[in-house]
Amino acid sequence: MASAPRALTVRALAPLPAEIAPGDDLAALITAANGGATFAPDDAVVVSHKVISKAEGALVDLATVTPSARAVELAAAQDKDPALIQVILDQTAEIIRAERGVLICRSVHGFVSANAGVDQSNVRDGWCVTLPVDPDASARRLRAALPARPAVVIADSFGRAWRHGQAEIAIGAAGLSVVDDQRGDLDREGREMRATVIATADHVASAADLVRHKTSGQPAVVVEGLGDAVTTDDGPGAGALVRAADEDLFGAR
Amino acid sequence: MASAPRALTVRALAPLPAEIAPGDDLAALITAANGGATFAPDDAVVVSHKVISKAEGALVDLATVTPSARAVELAAAQDKDPALIQVILDQTAEIIRAERGVLICRSVHGFVSANAGVDQSNVRDGWCVTLPVDPDASARRLRAALPARPAVVIADSFGRAWRHGQAEIAIGAAGLSVVDDQRGDLDREGREMRATVIATADHVASAADLVRHKTSGQPAVVVEGLGDAVTTDDGPGAGALVRAADEDLFGAR
Repeated sequence: MASAPRALTVRALAPLPAEIAPGDDLAALITAANGGATFAPDDAVVVSHKVISKAEGALVDLATVTPSARAVELAAAQDKDPALIQVILDQTAEIIRAERGVLICRSVHGFVSANAGVDQSNVRDGWCVTLPVDPDASARRLRAALPARPAVVIADSFGRAWRHGQAEIAIGAAGLSVVDDQRGDLDREGREMRATVIATADHVASAADLVRHKTSGQPAVVVEGLGDAVTTDDGPGAGALVRAADEDLFGAR
Repeated sequence: MASAPRALTVRALAPLPAEIAPGDDLAALITAANGGATFAPDDAVVVSHKVISKAEGALVDLATVTPSARAVELAAAQDKDPALIQVILDQTAEIIRAERGVLICRSVHGFVSANAGVDQSNVRDGWCVTLPVDPDASARRLRAALPARPAVVIADSFGRAWRHGQAEIAIGAAGLSVVDDQRGDLDREGREMRATVIATADHVASAADLVRHKTSGQPAVVVEGLGDAVTTDDGPGAGALVRAADEDLFGAR
């Protein structure tokens, strides 16, 4: 277990430029959005995946896409743009459900979400953005480029089973204990805890979302004071939070 | 939409007494754990459901339980205590899955989680704790008893589909905009957001979990500075976050 800090702060950085372009230096932009100040070594910088995707060029001009027969068929059934469906299929390892205009997909990364994370909001008309190719690698690169190497979390909003509303989760992470495994610790009655593994990285992503709005141009947030949840090593990243399909009991099959 | 605050703090209160008993005055105990200070009107006090359950007497002595034939059968199949299974069945509207020693249940409240929220950690040997009968009502009562009426969130740890680790969610709330509905707002490209409804109350519960540990005796946390996410009215509560079974696309069926 990591010991929990007693208090932390969650602070939105200043807005980033409206349009992030492929090759932009995100570390420099984020440091500027922090007033030029260096982050502390036990901070986590939480960044919406969309700016990472844009800086990495993970954008598709739908006019250039030729939809397959399967994309055309799915698009007709779900009343969607066939080119957009083709991009979603290109990002998809398995379609979990296709119903009521929603495709729930296991992405090539293993994430299960609507449309395999392909999104058109905050993107130029006629284009869409896809998830970063390797979000943990993106997090490691950004961390390495930030002075004092704070932890980095790359976040996205996912729909959930059985609950309304989207929750922000970590799709990439570097330098953060992504889970806090409390199994084996003794509770206050001296009984061993059996099932308590806490998804710390998802909690950090969720906390960050409280201080920003999807339309405010504030994709970067710092969570300050995480103590030893921030690690010197980059660690396994948010990929460690992905549960293998054959181990999952909660999700649709 | 609510406008997001620019920054907030998350602070664990001092430990509460190790054993909360039925009838204990939680508002007084929580105020004492805050050094006697009054919370601000835009704070949210986040409390682990377990202390609420204990104060409300939602505890069962397993020695007093007579398991039904169905409980005996399920217990044998899942290698569990039949009395514990009977308590779980009493809290369950529908069993979603029973596999590998895990019962995933839709509780009488509508929450889907392992064992319908019935839990033995941090509880006296031979007893178990159940979820509060009406967690939103519990939140409203606690809010009314706290000076300055901060928002109140009652939290529990739930397993999730497709992801390792438990995430803290809101099972009860009073005085908080439980969702931030951004549909219809314009993104930075001037395009209307179509699917963005954020589960604010779950994010508050998740943020609170970053400053406590399940074994630390710190079941109460204050999230300070939530701005107009805290409302004068108690609002619909966390019940509004429960998605009806027939509207759900993500979950096991």
